[in-house]
Amino acid sequence: MSDSAITTRQRLLDVATELFRSHSIAGTSLQMISDELGITKSAIYYHFRTREELLEAVLEPLIAKLRELVDEASTQRGARAQADAMLRGFVALAVANRTLIPVLTGDAAVGEVLRSRQDWAAIVARQMQLLAGAQSGMAGEVGAAIVMSGISSAVGLDYAGTDEQMLEHLISAGRRTLGLRGHDVK
Amino acid sequence: MSDSAITTRQRLLDVATELFRSHSIAGTSLQMISDELGITKSAIYYHFRTREELLEAVLEPLIAKLRELVDEASTQRGARAQADAMLRGFVALAVANRTLIPVLTGDAAVGEVLRSRQDWAAIVARQMQLLAGAQSGMAGEVGAAIVMSGISSAVGLDYAGTDEQMLEHLISAGRRTLGLRGHDVK
Repeated sequence: MSDSAITTRQRLLDVATELFRSHSIAGTSLQMISDELGITKSAIYYHFRTREELLEAVLEPLIAKLRELVDEASTQRGARAQADAMLRGFVALAVANRTLIPVLTGDAAVGEVLRSRQDWAAIVARQMQLLAGAQSGMAGEVGAAIVMSGISSAVGLDYAGTDEQMLEHLISAGRRTLGLRGHDVK
Repeated sequence: MSDSAITTRQRLLDVATELFRSHSIAGTSLQMISDELGITKSAIYYHFRTREELLEAVLEPLIAKLRELVDEASTQRGARAQADAMLRGFVALAVANRTLIPVLTGDAAVGEVLRSRQDWAAIVARQMQLLAGAQSGMAGEVGAAIVMSGISSAVGLDYAGTDEQMLEHLISAGRRTLGLRGHDVK
């Protein structure tokens, strides 16, 4: 692709993400995106042949980051340190994308795109395993499930505090849920 | 209503709930419900004029139960006992409806029905307050948000264990998240 094609592609993704945030994914049409960018719908189709392709391109950086976090956490020594690294990384990712994540988790098309990816189920399964690692059996699994869904939803609410404070509280609450005491982990 | 009209109404709700479980709400048409029951679509319209009315009738017992749990928890003495009662009640409700709740939380129409009800926002706000009560400020709010969403999602997963074990693990994890120690609560 030429430099200008790369720029248009990135602007298209940025505008689509903004419209998803303000109008939801189901509420955003390709027409709205082309109006906002001042380009034709066929210019959009040059970059993304379907809505699903566009949506997958919006999700791609988040999926890549999550895969990276899973790989990083796996290099830690010991199940508790792995669980803690996975928790801290996931909280940071969720807080950094706090206006986008609630839009994604509530949308049926996002679920379809993720299920269609061969790598997604394995990434989520690894994340769950890492989070569950500090507790045995079902206790670990239940804790990991609460932390993953709970944090994704909790970042979408409004609190009287900064994002930095939210991040600290989410890590503290997540550690308690997962059975990680503050003094046991790095 | 006559006895047979009451019976038909209840059978209609039961069949709709089953189809929601197996096909999702968005994937269930009035035609599918009438086929399953062996009645005409106009017989359905006699009981429920719109899809939204039918959906609200399916949600009604859950909303009523949640309101009851909030009222009961409020009668406990002390913020910690209130948080614990609310947690235990909510976990029991979620586990008892574990195949239905994931279907409801992922559906846009459910969100619209709940938002259209005058009482819903107040019930959820009270539930959050009760769950948050054992911790101050933002820590309490973040913990309550994690517990509410996390438990609703966690009941939808499969575990190698019984529903009773799931219930115990959810209560334990929820207590840790909310800062409730086992020996501090009833």
